[in-house]
Amino acid sequence: MKKSLFLLSLMLAPLASQAAEIASPNGNMLLKFYTDDKGRPTYELSYKNRPVVLPSHLGLELAKDKHASKGYDERDLMDHFTIANEQTTTVDETWKPVWGETATIRNHYIEYVALLQQQTEHRQIAIRFRVYDDGIGLRYEFPQQKELNYFLIKEEHTEFSMAGDHTAWWLPGDYDTQEQETQQTKLSEIRSRMEQAVNWGNSSVAVFSPTGVQTSLQMKSDDGLYINIHEAACADYATMHLELVDEQTKALSTELKGGSNAYTPAPKPSPYPLPRPFTFVSHLTPDATGLKGAMQTPCQTPWRTVMVSDDARDMLSSNLILNLNEPCALDDTSWIHPTKYCGVWWEMIVGKSSWNYTDEFPSIKLDNIDWKKVKPNGRHAANNEKVKRYIDFAAKNGLDEVLVEGWNVGWEDWANMWKRDVFDFQTAYPDFDLKMLNDYAHSKGVKLLMHHETSSSTQNYERHLEKAFQLMNRYGYDAVKTGYVGDIIPRGDHHYSQSMNNHYLHVVKEAAKHHIMVNAHEATRPTGLCRTYPNMVGNESARGTEYEAFGGSRPDHTCILPFTRLQGGPMDYTPGIFVTKLSEWSDNTSWARITIAGSLALYLTMYSPLQMAADLPEHYERFDDAFQFIRDVACDWDESIYLEAEPADYITVARKAKGTDKWFIGGKCDEQGHEAVVKLDFLDKGRKYECTIYADAPNAHYETNPQAYVITKKTVKAGQTLKLKEAPGGGFAISLVPIS
Amino acid sequence: MKKSLFLLSLMLAPLASQAAEIASPNGNMLLKFYTDDKGRPTYELSYKNRPVVLPSHLGLELAKDKHASKGYDERDLMDHFTIANEQTTTVDETWKPVWGETATIRNHYIEYVALLQQQTEHRQIAIRFRVYDDGIGLRYEFPQQKELNYFLIKEEHTEFSMAGDHTAWWLPGDYDTQEQETQQTKLSEIRSRMEQAVNWGNSSVAVFSPTGVQTSLQMKSDDGLYINIHEAACADYATMHLELVDEQTKALSTELKGGSNAYTPAPKPSPYPLPRPFTFVSHLTPDATGLKGAMQTPCQTPWRTVMVSDDARDMLSSNLILNLNEPCALDDTSWIHPTKYCGVWWEMIVGKSSWNYTDEFPSIKLDNIDWKKVKPNGRHAANNEKVKRYIDFAAKNGLDEVLVEGWNVGWEDWANMWKRDVFDFQTAYPDFDLKMLNDYAHSKGVKLLMHHETSSSTQNYERHLEKAFQLMNRYGYDAVKTGYVGDIIPRGDHHYSQSMNNHYLHVVKEAAKHHIMVNAHEATRPTGLCRTYPNMVGNESARGTEYEAFGGSRPDHTCILPFTRLQGGPMDYTPGIFVTKLSEWSDNTSWARITIAGSLALYLTMYSPLQMAADLPEHYERFDDAFQFIRDVACDWDESIYLEAEPADYITVARKAKGTDKWFIGGKCDEQGHEAVVKLDFLDKGRKYECTIYADAPNAHYETNPQAYVITKKTVKAGQTLKLKEAPGGGFAISLVPIS
Repeated sequence: MKKSLFLLSLMLAPLASQAAEIASPNGNMLLKFYTDDKGRPTYELSYKNRPVVLPSHLGLELAKDKHASKGYDERDLMDHFTIANEQTTTVDETWKPVWGETATIRNHYIEYVALLQQQTEHRQIAIRFRVYDDGIGLRYEFPQQKELNYFLIKEEHTEFSMAGDHTAWWLPGDYDTQEQETQQTKLSEIRSRMEQAVNWGNSSVAVFSPTGVQTSLQMKSDDGLYINIHEAACADYATMHLELVDEQTKALSTELKGGSNAYTPAPKPSPYPLPRPFTFVSHLTPDATGLKGAMQTPCQTPWRTVMVSDDARDMLSSNLILNLNEPCALDDTSWIHPTKYCGVWWEMIVGKSSWNYTDEFPSIKLDNIDWKKVKPNGRHAANNEKVKRYIDFAAKNGLDEVLVEGWNVGWEDWANMWKRDVFDFQTAYPDFDLKMLNDYAHSKGVKLLMHHETSSSTQNYERHLEKAFQLMNRYGYDAVKTGYVGDIIPRGDHHYSQSMNNHYLHVVKEAAKHHIMVNAHEATRPTGLCRTYPNMVGNESARGTEYEAFGGSRPDHTCILPFTRLQGGPMDYTPGIFVTKLSEWSDNTSWARITIAGSLALYLTMYSPLQMAADLPEHYERFDDAFQFIRDVACDWDESIYLEAEPADYITVARKAKGTDKWFIGGKCDEQGHEAVVKLDFLDKGRKYECTIYADAPNAHYETNPQAYVITKKTVKAGQTLKLKEAPGGGFAISLVPIS
Repeated sequence: MKKSLFLLSLMLAPLASQAAEIASPNGNMLLKFYTDDKGRPTYELSYKNRPVVLPSHLGLELAKDKHASKGYDERDLMDHFTIANEQTTTVDETWKPVWGETATIRNHYIEYVALLQQQTEHRQIAIRFRVYDDGIGLRYEFPQQKELNYFLIKEEHTEFSMAGDHTAWWLPGDYDTQEQETQQTKLSEIRSRMEQAVNWGNSSVAVFSPTGVQTSLQMKSDDGLYINIHEAACADYATMHLELVDEQTKALSTELKGGSNAYTPAPKPSPYPLPRPFTFVSHLTPDATGLKGAMQTPCQTPWRTVMVSDDARDMLSSNLILNLNEPCALDDTSWIHPTKYCGVWWEMIVGKSSWNYTDEFPSIKLDNIDWKKVKPNGRHAANNEKVKRYIDFAAKNGLDEVLVEGWNVGWEDWANMWKRDVFDFQTAYPDFDLKMLNDYAHSKGVKLLMHHETSSSTQNYERHLEKAFQLMNRYGYDAVKTGYVGDIIPRGDHHYSQSMNNHYLHVVKEAAKHHIMVNAHEATRPTGLCRTYPNMVGNESARGTEYEAFGGSRPDHTCILPFTRLQGGPMDYTPGIFVTKLSEWSDNTSWARITIAGSLALYLTMYSPLQMAADLPEHYERFDDAFQFIRDVACDWDESIYLEAEPADYITVARKAKGTDKWFIGGKCDEQGHEAVVKLDFLDKGRKYECTIYADAPNAHYETNPQAYVITKKTVKAGQTLKLKEAPGGGFAISLVPIS
């Protein structure tokens, strides 16, 4: 075959190549790859002989920059390709994550690489596929070569042509926020739903298209196929969105948006025809000039992933994203540990107290203020007394760390003022004694958890980073929650651009040098990089519990997130709100749409090695018997079994705590309620277990009766079945301790 | 008057206010200030009753950002002002620069501040004028106040309405380069000259208007007034250009250039009428989104300066720019010293050797290369042997330091590839032994001078800055030459934007903490900040000697720079080319348009505390008797007397070396030649001086006979007159040593 292709490559208009066909190890997944009659790389995907991805093109449009490329007539990396070489390999290996849902992870795939030649340009690129039983990954690779050393990406045109008008759970594509509520519509309804789907009130909104959506995008076909599109290992590359071509699409929104060099030539319209309707096309997050990436060979894009199954549970148990990431890059990971924590946080989110220390000034400049002399506002939460109270609470209840937000000066006018020098990450407010509080915590076996809100002023953060980490090492912090609220400074950049993605990873790498774990909020949605950098123990990157104080989230929200946001890595969702009606203790009229039993379930259904008990200590003390579950539950696991799952409806999972024989089971449902059937066939045969069930009371309801729960204890053994009734917006949690 | 203004301010359309009149200490300069019938702040300036600035408006247009201001209907800071308060003070003080042209500087001015009230917006700003005998400074001040805490600048509209069609020496206004040759035209000819004036071949060009020019802008009126417009103390604010309104001007090029947020509202055309022709209007350098500045009160703009005299020499002796800057901010300046240096540099500029070590790779990634194993190209200049040769030369000839460029890895593909991680500023090439060479230099009483080319990847430089300075401290470097070649990374930013100006100063401040002097190339043109941060000992920021190897500069170039570029601070011009025809020793056909005597003169006429002897050691050894002057000449002064001056024609200056009784005199002329008449009435009466004159030979000529010079020694005393014939493109240098 190679010979005939070699002859073809000498012709100007290439003919379509013969398709390579690659089946997954169990044969369920079938990939086809070929170049079409214009020499465009093309792939198709089917699952159990049902079409998943119809013929879809692959390629990149180049920006033809004055410096980085040869000029404006340079050909894009879109067409005129012939297949110069092909290779297929099988890989079957097992690796151990530093933390995770299971003790080991099997990585079993068939790899196919096509080396593609653009004869006219004397250039080669490769497209690499990995075909798993539960999906595929594909990426572009750019070898170092004489005619391709540097290039600027105008747009990546990776197509995912869907076979039908699937139901989709989607967020509006946005360069700066991913904190919307998920929309559930048919693909054909995305355009008409977009306006109301956008979170216009968010501090930073940049939507780009009426059919643009984010990944991970979960879909379900009318005939019951679950399909998920996302990406893996997105490092030093812009985050991908998907733009749907529908019947109304006239042109994809890929025009170059100007930039400030008056002599930049006007962008030409894309010369490539639109794909068929129901096709998603990749849309990268731009830099300040509208371009999507600056590349130097040898390099590659992130993996573009399509997960498929006819069983929704496979969407949750899949390790495809982690498997596509590189192995751990850290030599020593002994200092990385799963963490349960509480924190001085929820009362500020609710509005009962403040991050800032004073209300005396309309604005502040850090250099000009003697903090000892300013007038306190009396509402500052991060004070010695309160922090000690939290440390005591953590120590008493076996929580590892205490997050304290608002400890450092600068909160008086921190957000959205285009203020560069907003924090120094060094100076504590006068009522927060850094040394005393850390010493006090350590004396009780607890650590403080650092907080670095950057206000998205990344240059300022990078200038202070080393000294901020040195301070953490000095006082004994080993984890930091970072934040990126508001528009990015430098102005014009976006939260999910190549440069910001580089920044987030830069922080993680620098933190690792200091043995610091990172939990980044408002950063790019994760793509499994925590495999390579396991000190990245958490991310927000979605609508978290804080929104329960900002008007609330729908009860089905937490039954969607594991299918979407959690595909790329754990979320610091900060569950555990027991007093859901905030007006009970504050002026906030918002309320959390969840029962207490449902809240307990989240510690299992929303996997994370970092779990917060987010409510106030006094609220947990009111419901101490229910809080016992939070005291008991693990956050690192040897085994995880998804028992039931349907997107936006319910999730039931059983997990075996790391290094123990204890099992925990959680079930969470939407506003409809759910009857879970749990077969205990995963327990050790012949052993007895003490089973404690935290269930919704029969009359529980997320709105009218959220605090009604029943705790039952009994002895169980393998093979028994538990039937659990989850209230609307409710759930259950179970702990199983072997007693024989 | 205040009372009636208070009443006026209650009316919607303010009437013109009565003009305040402020005369300079000697009465020559007269400033008028008032608000016109639209409430626009307006000033006029005259010198000895001759108009210099006709009525000109002041004000700022705001960007009305969604975050930083109240909304799109917010009023600009342009009109509807009334004068709420006025204050006039006299200041007469004397201060000592850490280094400079004179031992002390007198700062004598009348200050006038108008507090301006925008009644409708409940906002106040101030405009502060300082009226000197040789010019004025004016700036906007923004007090902290309830209704003005943060704002974004769309454009500053400071007008300078010229009284006639003056002759101007100008460079095209450009956001990224100031390395053009100066144009000499009438104001009315700027537009037609623009296209040919732009340095299209420069690595980074961003011109913005057919009538945009840079400051410092030197002009001369038909009736012999010398007028210079520039700025002082430009810190954390965008560099100002000037846009000339001429007969053809339709609208000023101030439109907002978009940005990448798809929902940014389209810019509205400016509602302000164009001023009369021959008016310059300020045009600030934009950020990546096209906006000009993000401000937080209390704050102020840089000073906008107008220098005026009927004697060209006053343009050169004026200290107005330095006086308008803040006093020294460093407690300890003992480590800052004027420096004469040579360096491994000119032979790379000429193309005889290379910065990079290998030609083996089409591109490199720093992490992927074992430098010990790569194949050297044999042309790498910064090698141990050559550097030792330069150290020996410096030690023998009393030069303080040796610059070495190309010592560190990364030069293989450093420029204009949008490559972020281009240098690490830590790793030396294998043939450059950091420790050995520094030790060797120190053993001979010489220091190496560090080089940090950033390739304009500022984020990368800031990430490495602290460690780079630590390395310098470790090996004993005390000065760094920085470089900013190519387009700025992050993409879309410009060399002279607010954020870049902040970056340059950030580097200077961080360097000061490490007792490091900074000489920044391709950075913003200086505005006297070296008074406040005297470790900023040099800047390039103009067309330097390197252009003699890139096609050459006109002979009058160095007779213009002291009137323009040098107004804001010293230039690292790197003079001293003795072998001007580069083809004598290289394949470079370019040649320097100067005689050897002219080259010697530059050490006096181009004042700098940092002076290079730029040619090769072997070239100086060929002309050792002429090189004696470079060995002898000081670069720090107790007294400086400009004896003769005319822009683009000639400059003659006498300077008394710091802490000695030695005088040095230099004269430099254009392609016409010049006869200098030097009256020695500044010498101590009654003393005799050994006078050594380095003059052009009678038949010397910059093109046909550049190396023809005559050295004469004689004894002179005060009151004598020397007549010196300067050849075309030539000059002379004199040293005067008291012998009685």
